[in-house]
Amino acid sequence: MIFGNVRRDEGSGKSGSFSQGERTRQAILTGAVKIAAREGLAAVTIGRLAKELRMSKSGLIVHFGSKRALELATLETARKLFKDAVLVPAQAERRGIARLWSLCDLWLQHIERQIFSGPYFFTGAFLEYVGQRGPVAEVITNIAQDWFDALRKAVEEAQKKREIDPKAGPKQIAFELNGLMLGAHSAYLLKHGDCWRAARPALLGQLRKLATGETPTRAFTSERNWKKYLQS
Amino acid sequence: MIFGNVRRDEGSGKSGSFSQGERTRQAILTGAVKIAAREGLAAVTIGRLAKELRMSKSGLIVHFGSKRALELATLETARKLFKDAVLVPAQAERRGIARLWSLCDLWLQHIERQIFSGPYFFTGAFLEYVGQRGPVAEVITNIAQDWFDALRKAVEEAQKKREIDPKAGPKQIAFELNGLMLGAHSAYLLKHGDCWRAARPALLGQLRKLATGETPTRAFTSERNWKKYLQS
Repeated sequence: MIFGNVRRDEGSGKSGSFSQGERTRQAILTGAVKIAAREGLAAVTIGRLAKELRMSKSGLIVHFGSKRALELATLETARKLFKDAVLVPAQAERRGIARLWSLCDLWLQHIERQIFSGPYFFTGAFLEYVGQRGPVAEVITNIAQDWFDALRKAVEEAQKKREIDPKAGPKQIAFELNGLMLGAHSAYLLKHGDCWRAARPALLGQLRKLATGETPTRAFTSERNWKKYLQS
Repeated sequence: MIFGNVRRDEGSGKSGSFSQGERTRQAILTGAVKIAAREGLAAVTIGRLAKELRMSKSGLIVHFGSKRALELATLETARKLFKDAVLVPAQAERRGIARLWSLCDLWLQHIERQIFSGPYFFTGAFLEYVGQRGPVAEVITNIAQDWFDALRKAVEEAQKKREIDPKAGPKQIAFELNGLMLGAHSAYLLKHGDCWRAARPALLGQLRKLATGETPTRAFTSERNWKKYLQS
């Protein structure tokens, strides 16, 4: 949506060149996401990309027009990667505590699988931009908000199904689960592998505290038991 | 230490100008910390500071020599602010679960009191630089590590005093407490005030789970009861 203009500009080039142009555009964005994931969005400049991709600056400008358009397109590419790795597959899980767990598990997996080449998306980006104004800050805040909303909604669904105590505050639960993931991420980044590995037991422990009798307590005692329970 | 050269350069100016020079240096660094706290370290440039502080670029270069030296001095200034707001006052609390709580409470306070003008120090800075190499990344990783170590050490002290279950993993506890703070910080930044206010009860709840019988359970039920217990 926000790239409507950029895409139209691109389409207005030589006839028949669209798919080649689109491929180039994707290559540029893949490079941009890689740089940003490792060094932050500020490091994504037309000059830097031109050098890394061995393209001319003017060639890049044809695709993105401005640094701002490039930043927004980079963010949108990273958002899609996150969505495809975490948000979409969680929707395939059955609604309720299973989907809530799936969101947590897939979030940890997107770190383990190194969907991004560095820790910037989206916690770092959020902390860098949340206090600022403008379209980049707005998109980043929306992405962070979408993630919290997905967690909160999964909690509410689990409450509707009476799998989680309906009296507990869903937003608060979402922030606490997210906190456990962020704490684990710090452990991962500081190379405390033992604490990183403890993240899933800690998250299951948190779910056990919130769960009603609908789910057997035993299910929360290990990831293996949790998977067994889901398959049963 | 890392600014040894810079400080010596400064001292080699006109005789008697040291304290004036030091005041200017401090004013520059205060400005630099403000910019970085809101927009990240990458936004701190000689040009930007010269404009904001209405100084000449050459005047700034006299003080810091290079962008790198300016970044390192900015970090050191921010580190001292954090230390004075959180780490040092926690040392005044009695060793054990009281000091552990104090570290958590002072961390939340440093957000509430807006010790920094934005959310960048040090979680954002850590996420931006942890995957990188060089002196800036090294200092930032050390600052993050110092914070975890302070938490972990406080847990270990509480375990030695038998106030916290000695069988629990101190590092893991530190990462989980830190995670709760990070989750609360996200709530604060996304303007979910109710979740932010729930941070202290959540942290006390976490401590209650870990505590041995040394501390009365009632002490953990509210911040007020906790303060009463500490005074008793």
